[in-house]
Amino acid sequence: MKPLSYQVLGLDGMARLGKIETKHGTIDTPTFMPVGTAGTVKAMLPSSLIKTGSQVVLGNTYHLMLRPGSDRIKGLGGLHQFMNWPGPILTDSGGFQVMSLSKLRTLSETGVVFQSHIDGKKYNLTPEVSVNIQQKLDSTITMQLDECPAHTTDKQVIEKSMLMSLRWAERSKDSFINRQGYGLFGIVQGGTFEDFREQSIKGLANIGFHGYAIGGLAVGEPQNTMFEVLDGLIPHMPEDKPRYLMGVGTPSDIVGAVSRGVDMFDCVLPTRSGRTGKAYTRRGEINIRNSRHADDPRPIDNQCECPACTDYSRAYIHHLVKSNEILGPMLLTWHNIQYYQDLMCALRKSIGNNQLANFISRFYDEQNSGDIEIF
Amino acid sequence: MKPLSYQVLGLDGMARLGKIETKHGTIDTPTFMPVGTAGTVKAMLPSSLIKTGSQVVLGNTYHLMLRPGSDRIKGLGGLHQFMNWPGPILTDSGGFQVMSLSKLRTLSETGVVFQSHIDGKKYNLTPEVSVNIQQKLDSTITMQLDECPAHTTDKQVIEKSMLMSLRWAERSKDSFINRQGYGLFGIVQGGTFEDFREQSIKGLANIGFHGYAIGGLAVGEPQNTMFEVLDGLIPHMPEDKPRYLMGVGTPSDIVGAVSRGVDMFDCVLPTRSGRTGKAYTRRGEINIRNSRHADDPRPIDNQCECPACTDYSRAYIHHLVKSNEILGPMLLTWHNIQYYQDLMCALRKSIGNNQLANFISRFYDEQNSGDIEIF
Repeated sequence: MKPLSYQVLGLDGMARLGKIETKHGTIDTPTFMPVGTAGTVKAMLPSSLIKTGSQVVLGNTYHLMLRPGSDRIKGLGGLHQFMNWPGPILTDSGGFQVMSLSKLRTLSETGVVFQSHIDGKKYNLTPEVSVNIQQKLDSTITMQLDECPAHTTDKQVIEKSMLMSLRWAERSKDSFINRQGYGLFGIVQGGTFEDFREQSIKGLANIGFHGYAIGGLAVGEPQNTMFEVLDGLIPHMPEDKPRYLMGVGTPSDIVGAVSRGVDMFDCVLPTRSGRTGKAYTRRGEINIRNSRHADDPRPIDNQCECPACTDYSRAYIHHLVKSNEILGPMLLTWHNIQYYQDLMCALRKSIGNNQLANFISRFYDEQNSGDIEIF
Repeated sequence: MKPLSYQVLGLDGMARLGKIETKHGTIDTPTFMPVGTAGTVKAMLPSSLIKTGSQVVLGNTYHLMLRPGSDRIKGLGGLHQFMNWPGPILTDSGGFQVMSLSKLRTLSETGVVFQSHIDGKKYNLTPEVSVNIQQKLDSTITMQLDECPAHTTDKQVIEKSMLMSLRWAERSKDSFINRQGYGLFGIVQGGTFEDFREQSIKGLANIGFHGYAIGGLAVGEPQNTMFEVLDGLIPHMPEDKPRYLMGVGTPSDIVGAVSRGVDMFDCVLPTRSGRTGKAYTRRGEINIRNSRHADDPRPIDNQCECPACTDYSRAYIHHLVKSNEILGPMLLTWHNIQYYQDLMCALRKSIGNNQLANFISRFYDEQNSGDIEIF
């Protein structure tokens, strides 16, 4: 059984152009995975997602195991069929959201017992259960269960947690069933401590995974701290496997992480921002609710080819958002995902052409130039 | 200046197959107009609307004049450009929603003074102002301002109101500027009193309009009362002009009204129901929130070719609606509009083939057969 495979196609400094071949299709890296929490990337049809260039979506095991339930999804043919997304799906382990959303959690070496935030029902999530649920979902890429502690400088807390995550990694590997084109990723922990990060990745590499994720970042630390962790960690990561920075991030976070050798990203920012009136543009973020847009006939971003930008004015989208019309989040979500995917496409192209440094310099110049002048 | 034109292409009993040629395109009748209240058919992209077979949408003058404002829409190129709907747009006069939504209304012969429900700002809506606002919106079909009294059996109230609406009709006509392919519709009032309805349509026909609407129905009276009014009224309506039954209705209302000679309909039911989990099917209405759908892999309606039915199970849409996911209303709205447009298409086809009676008989048989058995 050949699992999913990763191939480096080009290097530019630490940055890598690559591709991941999976059971459900190819992923060009660096890639951005829109978040489809509960079996839907909020406000987007899969056919629209494909038009943005999205190749892989993320599903949240915590949400899906509670509602509609992994057995139900399995009975309905798996998550791909359920949500009409035939492409690759990566699912998280559920651990992160148990910690942030559920009630009455009890964490132990075995796993975590928690109550559903929806109906109070009790669940027992262990590394084995998490892998098994993700298999029922028919997830293309399964994530190990890990513990993701809050941002802290307490070395003892971080070390203890990192070592338990390593033991959970081993249990996850033991319970994962190899299938053609599927994969299991281990998760590096260790907070902001370089020695722990190194210990973690070495332990994971010894167990052996189809890809390695970096967890425990973007949890409140400054961007430069995150970049320093990447600078220390990435040289120790296997070169022949994809590297996934979990839950990251802003366009600037992604550009910085790609230049440091990260291949995969996921983040709720483009979708969540789209529901609060925020739009990403080549000249920075704007809030479309601002009255300066009320009479502006120009698009959000004149270089963007999404429907929000080709068919509508800022004035119209401002009106939709002010009027709480569903089409507002629909258009802004589409635009924001398009913006992220255009950015990933541009990053891949510049790595392929060994022009990444130039691209990054232009990216920051443009981002810092400020929004278009008031109409 | 040739206004919009109407042509009868076929008759089946009282029912008419026809077409309306306008500045913004052809409308095949009988037609159903999805409601685009505030410059958007809620949860639908115009490109999706077109796929359902929708040819004309309705805009609400009351909502648009308050927000974003008719001068602003005019400055942005008119409602067609603003909302990216190049096809015909019919706008109501604003009067109906002033009565149902605004605060502190004062009705007089001149018109109605009211306060916006959004910010309390005062407006003075007269027949002249309404026509002028609709022209600023670049509405293809302008509706006269009328008074639509609540359902009552008080003859004096209805007569007085009907006569004032007639005087407002004349003032509307006087202030309407004829433009190639545009039109102005008068509105028949008179409650459930046949003599008043006859007096109203004769008065309107004397003034002369490009189409005639039937107002003051579907305001709480039983369906058979509405049909009786249509039976009494329609023989008095001009044969060479389109007939529009305002705010109607359920699939059964529409079938009954088409068979009585009505050409045009609008209603919030398919869109509003789509946001509350209700779906129309060839076998009647279902509520997708019901737990009987939770494991059902079958589509909402297996004869429907909308994305909700071709790409998704009842189980999935049930999950979306239970989880308050935006994609739920998006898919259900699309499906419901598709259902309505498929119904209109089938009605047009059967009128053309002189098979309307057979179609109606099959329609009721199927509607009354009940939903598919539990999976």
